[in-house]
Amino acid sequence: MTAAPPRSAAIVAIGTEMLGPLRQDTNSLWLSARLEEAGIRVVRKSVVGDDPAALRDELDRAASAAPLVFTTGGLGPTADDVTVAAVAEWAGAPLRRNEAFLQAMRERFEKRGFPMPECNAKQADFIVGADVLANPKGTAPGFRARKDGVEIVILPGVPSEMKEIFETLVLPVLRERAGGTIARRRVLRIAGMGESAVEQLVAPLYEKWSEDPVTILASPGEVQLHLVARGTPDEAERRLAEMEADFRKVLGDRVFGQDGDDLAVVVGRLLKESRRSIALAESCSGGLVSTLLTDVPGSSDYFLGSVVSYANSAKEQLLGVAEDTLRAHGAVSAPAAREMAVGARERFDADVAVSITGIAGPDGGTPEKPVGTVFFAIATRDGSLVERRRQLFGDRAVIRRTSALHALELLRRTLTGKAEAP
Amino acid sequence: MTAAPPRSAAIVAIGTEMLGPLRQDTNSLWLSARLEEAGIRVVRKSVVGDDPAALRDELDRAASAAPLVFTTGGLGPTADDVTVAAVAEWAGAPLRRNEAFLQAMRERFEKRGFPMPECNAKQADFIVGADVLANPKGTAPGFRARKDGVEIVILPGVPSEMKEIFETLVLPVLRERAGGTIARRRVLRIAGMGESAVEQLVAPLYEKWSEDPVTILASPGEVQLHLVARGTPDEAERRLAEMEADFRKVLGDRVFGQDGDDLAVVVGRLLKESRRSIALAESCSGGLVSTLLTDVPGSSDYFLGSVVSYANSAKEQLLGVAEDTLRAHGAVSAPAAREMAVGARERFDADVAVSITGIAGPDGGTPEKPVGTVFFAIATRDGSLVERRRQLFGDRAVIRRTSALHALELLRRTLTGKAEAP
Repeated sequence: MTAAPPRSAAIVAIGTEMLGPLRQDTNSLWLSARLEEAGIRVVRKSVVGDDPAALRDELDRAASAAPLVFTTGGLGPTADDVTVAAVAEWAGAPLRRNEAFLQAMRERFEKRGFPMPECNAKQADFIVGADVLANPKGTAPGFRARKDGVEIVILPGVPSEMKEIFETLVLPVLRERAGGTIARRRVLRIAGMGESAVEQLVAPLYEKWSEDPVTILASPGEVQLHLVARGTPDEAERRLAEMEADFRKVLGDRVFGQDGDDLAVVVGRLLKESRRSIALAESCSGGLVSTLLTDVPGSSDYFLGSVVSYANSAKEQLLGVAEDTLRAHGAVSAPAAREMAVGARERFDADVAVSITGIAGPDGGTPEKPVGTVFFAIATRDGSLVERRRQLFGDRAVIRRTSALHALELLRRTLTGKAEAP
Repeated sequence: MTAAPPRSAAIVAIGTEMLGPLRQDTNSLWLSARLEEAGIRVVRKSVVGDDPAALRDELDRAASAAPLVFTTGGLGPTADDVTVAAVAEWAGAPLRRNEAFLQAMRERFEKRGFPMPECNAKQADFIVGADVLANPKGTAPGFRARKDGVEIVILPGVPSEMKEIFETLVLPVLRERAGGTIARRRVLRIAGMGESAVEQLVAPLYEKWSEDPVTILASPGEVQLHLVARGTPDEAERRLAEMEADFRKVLGDRVFGQDGDDLAVVVGRLLKESRRSIALAESCSGGLVSTLLTDVPGSSDYFLGSVVSYANSAKEQLLGVAEDTLRAHGAVSAPAAREMAVGARERFDADVAVSITGIAGPDGGTPEKPVGTVFFAIATRDGSLVERRRQLFGDRAVIRRTSALHALELLRRTLTGKAEAP
């Protein structure tokens, strides 16, 4: 049984800054993933500057490559935002100012206590004959227009706005139209292990699943396995479920979550479900674990707070680490980590407390404790302690991020009762 | 005296994996920077899959946009590496196997102790009439070919190989041809102001500098002005210096730094130079300001630590905020912010302490204090206090980031004596 061939699309990112040495188009990466789900293959991506003539030429080129074209960017209020006017001219449709929309925009500005800058008015210029895609997260709406059988979808460049409009107003339509062939992707996420260690575990499965693309992606502190299955919705679901079961079998509880579940989200869910509160004592990670945990909406339900204790005096004053401990073992040591965790747990009156102390570099390493040496401890209300020492590698940013994810993974294993003895 | 008009270029990245959701083309970012220096403006970038017909179409499109086209990728030995054959067909030039090159390749493989896989032989197929660009870091050479006045430079996709060939064999030629025309870029960075407010300040300068591209880039909490001047090295330097002076005049001390200087780096430098130590009390920002400050290598010289006080009990226990204050005014209030800053300053014995308390959302807003309401305070050892209330907009992530940058900007102004009365 053969599935219908997938439709194809082209993506045009608009913005002179993305032609320079500073900014990347990243929206197209996200769009590619979502289009894949709807069985639509991206056959070409391009970036063009904020120049009406160049943009019109580029729309011709994109339209010659695929019957569905997405643009992102150039919907802002400034003089260099030219997308709407250029698309209108390209499609041979006039612009018309929508007075009701303009009025609503003015009122929103006034509500915030200042008058709308006049340059914003052009965001009320709509393409006649195009569908308007309302933007709940910003002022500029998107549009869906047509020219000679080619459909063009105009989206904002701000990622959160682009995603919101695409998810709510574009993807449902594409899915319905796709009817037949789709693709399903499952991402299995693993923290606290290296890429080659994960690869060794799953390599025996490659032969069975040789027809389906399996990709391993590594970033500091995390490894992702991307599984993709194609076919009719039923076929794809079934195939992906079997694939996932195979991979989960060899990976076991090393998988902390799937798809969009960040480790901080998973840990937050475990804390919430078990009605436990958490506090932190961070040294080398400098507040990063707290930042990751509080990125999650609703984290105030379980996150009490943390002490970022960079200076030794802070470890003593705010966490109660003994001066003797610091003198005898140093601030980067198992005893210091232990006292930091216990101190944070007591001072915040938390159910669980996690501590991290290490050497992020570039300076501060010694032969016994080179850059990348990190100690972790987790103290719980019942008096139990989990401890780890890890040697991490990379530059300062990588060591900080890896140490933060190691801490969260150790916390996850502790909360699920899977943290073996140190 | 007018400089020669800049030449323009288009870049085509070749590889099906860069059309999927996992891989980005990053070579073009590097190429853009190097080309800009040689006075060559990139007018479009595109990504196309490993498909000969699609690639030939794309070469037509690129050649219609610029007289100089770069391709990266698709030079490997496998079946999906089609660039050389496709370019040859596009340019109407035959391929001819270079037996001497093939022999040398075979010998290199044998020296490593294994026979050359036969698929590698195609890397010895050279485009007749094209210059061969030797690849000292890999097997596949690059090429420089021409068609109808358009020059096409074919480079490998492996970044280290692409860079090596470009630096040694391409850039010198481009520089020489440019006859001296180069470009210089300056980035002026501003925090704590919106994009439209910055635009209004600088708009009167657009006419004077209408020939030179000025780009405004906004991200949560920061606005960047990119100024670029072209000409001979002397002209470009002089022109950029004049441009920068004009823009700095209207922006004044709103500019916190230039080029690669992050706000946390600038603030860190100010603290270090004035030998002042810092502590923080963070609520809604959840540790983000601490994370930004400690991202900077050497920050342990001035950063003592912070308390992330999410729970009210943490504000009381760890920072000494009065229960009465929290009861009467709430945790998100000017008095709470003030006591948090004073408490952090005292407990860490810091020269300066910054506090942030606000509502990052999505929940917790009230009519008097909607989501995005944030209070800041800065306490110094001499007993002085700087305070602000700000209404920020966006989702949770944007409000958190914006509040963190606002805090750092207020700190910068305080450290430079530029924070006006609240």
